[in-house]
Amino acid sequence: MTQSLTGRMINGFDIADADELDASSRDLVERRGRVLSTGYKLLYARPLHFVRGEGRYLIDADGHPYFDAYNNVTSLGHCHPVVVDAVTRQVAKLNTNTRYLHEGLVDYAERLADTHDRALTRAIFTCTGSESIDLALRIARTATGKPGVVVTENAYHGMTMAAAEISPSLGTGVPLGAHVRVVPAPARGATASEVGRQLARAVAAAAADLERHGIGFGAFVADSLFSSDGLAPEPAGFLREVRNVVRDAGGLYIADEVQPGFARTGDAMWGYQRHGIVPDVVAMGKPMGNGLPIAGVVATDAALDDFGRNARYFNTFGGNTVSIAAAAAVLSVIEEDGLLENSRVVGARLLDRLRVTAARTVMLGDVRGAGLYLGVDVVDALGQPDGERALDIVNRLRERRFLISAMGPHGSVLKIRPPLTTTADEADELNDALADVLDEITGGR
Amino acid sequence: MTQSLTGRMINGFDIADADELDASSRDLVERRGRVLSTGYKLLYARPLHFVRGEGRYLIDADGHPYFDAYNNVTSLGHCHPVVVDAVTRQVAKLNTNTRYLHEGLVDYAERLADTHDRALTRAIFTCTGSESIDLALRIARTATGKPGVVVTENAYHGMTMAAAEISPSLGTGVPLGAHVRVVPAPARGATASEVGRQLARAVAAAAADLERHGIGFGAFVADSLFSSDGLAPEPAGFLREVRNVVRDAGGLYIADEVQPGFARTGDAMWGYQRHGIVPDVVAMGKPMGNGLPIAGVVATDAALDDFGRNARYFNTFGGNTVSIAAAAAVLSVIEEDGLLENSRVVGARLLDRLRVTAARTVMLGDVRGAGLYLGVDVVDALGQPDGERALDIVNRLRERRFLISAMGPHGSVLKIRPPLTTTADEADELNDALADVLDEITGGR
Repeated sequence: MTQSLTGRMINGFDIADADELDASSRDLVERRGRVLSTGYKLLYARPLHFVRGEGRYLIDADGHPYFDAYNNVTSLGHCHPVVVDAVTRQVAKLNTNTRYLHEGLVDYAERLADTHDRALTRAIFTCTGSESIDLALRIARTATGKPGVVVTENAYHGMTMAAAEISPSLGTGVPLGAHVRVVPAPARGATASEVGRQLARAVAAAAADLERHGIGFGAFVADSLFSSDGLAPEPAGFLREVRNVVRDAGGLYIADEVQPGFARTGDAMWGYQRHGIVPDVVAMGKPMGNGLPIAGVVATDAALDDFGRNARYFNTFGGNTVSIAAAAAVLSVIEEDGLLENSRVVGARLLDRLRVTAARTVMLGDVRGAGLYLGVDVVDALGQPDGERALDIVNRLRERRFLISAMGPHGSVLKIRPPLTTTADEADELNDALADVLDEITGGR
Repeated sequence: MTQSLTGRMINGFDIADADELDASSRDLVERRGRVLSTGYKLLYARPLHFVRGEGRYLIDADGHPYFDAYNNVTSLGHCHPVVVDAVTRQVAKLNTNTRYLHEGLVDYAERLADTHDRALTRAIFTCTGSESIDLALRIARTATGKPGVVVTENAYHGMTMAAAEISPSLGTGVPLGAHVRVVPAPARGATASEVGRQLARAVAAAAADLERHGIGFGAFVADSLFSSDGLAPEPAGFLREVRNVVRDAGGLYIADEVQPGFARTGDAMWGYQRHGIVPDVVAMGKPMGNGLPIAGVVATDAALDDFGRNARYFNTFGGNTVSIAAAAAVLSVIEEDGLLENSRVVGARLLDRLRVTAARTVMLGDVRGAGLYLGVDVVDALGQPDGERALDIVNRLRERRFLISAMGPHGSVLKIRPPLTTTADEADELNDALADVLDEITGGR
């Protein structure tokens, strides 16, 4: 079993290896090193230098196409023509803020609300998932008067100070807030009611502990897929009991839908819907504008009431006319091209194929997923998480021009997220590449 | 003297007045009311519904052009062709994040660093000014180990939880953090050394108070123009003593350049440069991409060292390829079209003209500004701040299709920010419109 990677970036380039790069990449790496914060990291043992994007491909400076099965931002594929067209037209026409009337903003807010549970009536637009989580926390604190937050043990919720304080996966260099309690990630391989009961009990205990310390329980925040905890999509429904416990303890349930949202899971537009629950606040981000910065929250009237009345909130770029045009195009493409259904069908096929591949080797353990968000456990001879091996697989796939990464507390879970437009053949291509890499490793190459 | 407006939005539309709107605006207002947070506000007593932007004009649904002398986001003018072209080309080619190599990112970071003092070597990109301030606070807390922050009494620094906690102008609905101390805004009408000494003394006392409470002094944060405090541009240089006090007390100096940055003040690219100081961290935002969401910080090596090593920071959309293309175009236009010089020259002319106008009426008091950021005190018969009159002037100008707003703790300072491209004739046009409005009021119309 490898050491926990919590806090270190999974699959990051080590600058000590810069000498092994080609001249042009080395030059860029060195210039980055001088002018950007040392906190900036590159992906993969050999970083990539892309100059063009088209559908599922990112194309490097030498013209080589890479199958981008990692990117959940451009989830319609790179440079999707409908989004490009919407942005191109809007940026030349008008780009302004939400303090003037504009149909685009209102139309989009209505369409977005229609995809959510009917209790989630009101939207606020921001620019990033971090801002959405941060805003959700402010809403919860205002509504409950209590700052305490409960999250899972390797959660990641964002980069603002308030979001980083509830993100244990950032590691010991980023202290958790004194108002934060962590609970174990959902258990695996049990029934929905068992998983749910266990998680619910832990959340109830954490909430009680916050009350006992005089901090008070304000909110439970969870990524409905538990991505950074290593992916826990199944069995759908296990969040029901947790949701009830949160309500009973007087806190708000904040669904972090930055990863599972916008049809990624195949079963529903939103991850919480797979579980049959209704959160108080939902935070959205990443794929919302297929790459244009736009994010936001929707919330119930009750949750937003105090905040809306007492706390002026104006986000200069949040809901700007161009980002809204991109977001509206994304919703249209998801709907018109049936991408929710495609995510479900192609995701299920890829899950099956990956399970067949995993059954052929001792290196792979459990394979799980919802729609086109899939995780594969990489394990050592004792069946324990093997982050080093996972990293090796990720980098060998990169050499074959397939982009995935790894997740989980040990970085041992292959993180596979091809675009929502992936076809059955493309899914097979991805699985075949993984099978080839495993053969390569087995063959000692 | 009118009541302090701190906490209420200045120049906001009152939804009780919806009946007075035309049918299409009323419909949009009602739909906004149903689907957006009640916290969303519209500008002006009669909200505006724009459908197009071109240069200094915003054009409403009836085809009427409004001179936008309020917008410091699209500070090159609306839909500037160079920016539109850069975005149009990049969005069709590649939009990805900073974890791959890309020349655009590195080129821009280098060009941006070149506009700053040479000690400010390293950049981090975010999406909004709020994220930049929030990040600056995280950097300061990591570098000093102390959370205490000192700000001015009506400061506004952003909308994340951490930024809102240091923004007294948001009012009592948004509590200040227990780690926050406020000092009076810079005095008016004194010499640089007097203003500086007064502010420095207050900052030193606040820093000592933070230490006395065991919180510790981590940072002083100030908008180099003190916009929300009512604008205090002069005399340049008064921040020098403050800067020294902050250093002596062991905190970081965070310059909030979201308002004064990118040539707005005419004297220098950055507001802090007018004062001859070098901050530890600089937060940038608004006009950086002429409307595309992009923002960031630059910092000294010493300030960033701990944070860069210990705290992973990845902002999904921060420094994305398309926003960087927009930002690079903005820098090019500022440089190639001599907009810093234009801001200085035309700003000085507008300041002169506004002073002549102010001298003709008892309604206006002090007129001040730096470059194309100008403020005019609106006063009552006793010379006290008159926010109601200011609002009346703002709304009468809006009826004449000139857009400005008001600022300051009483909302009594006219806030005038025409684009950096404003010509002398256009400046005169703006001043003439104000003079006409004053005549109209004097004539009892």
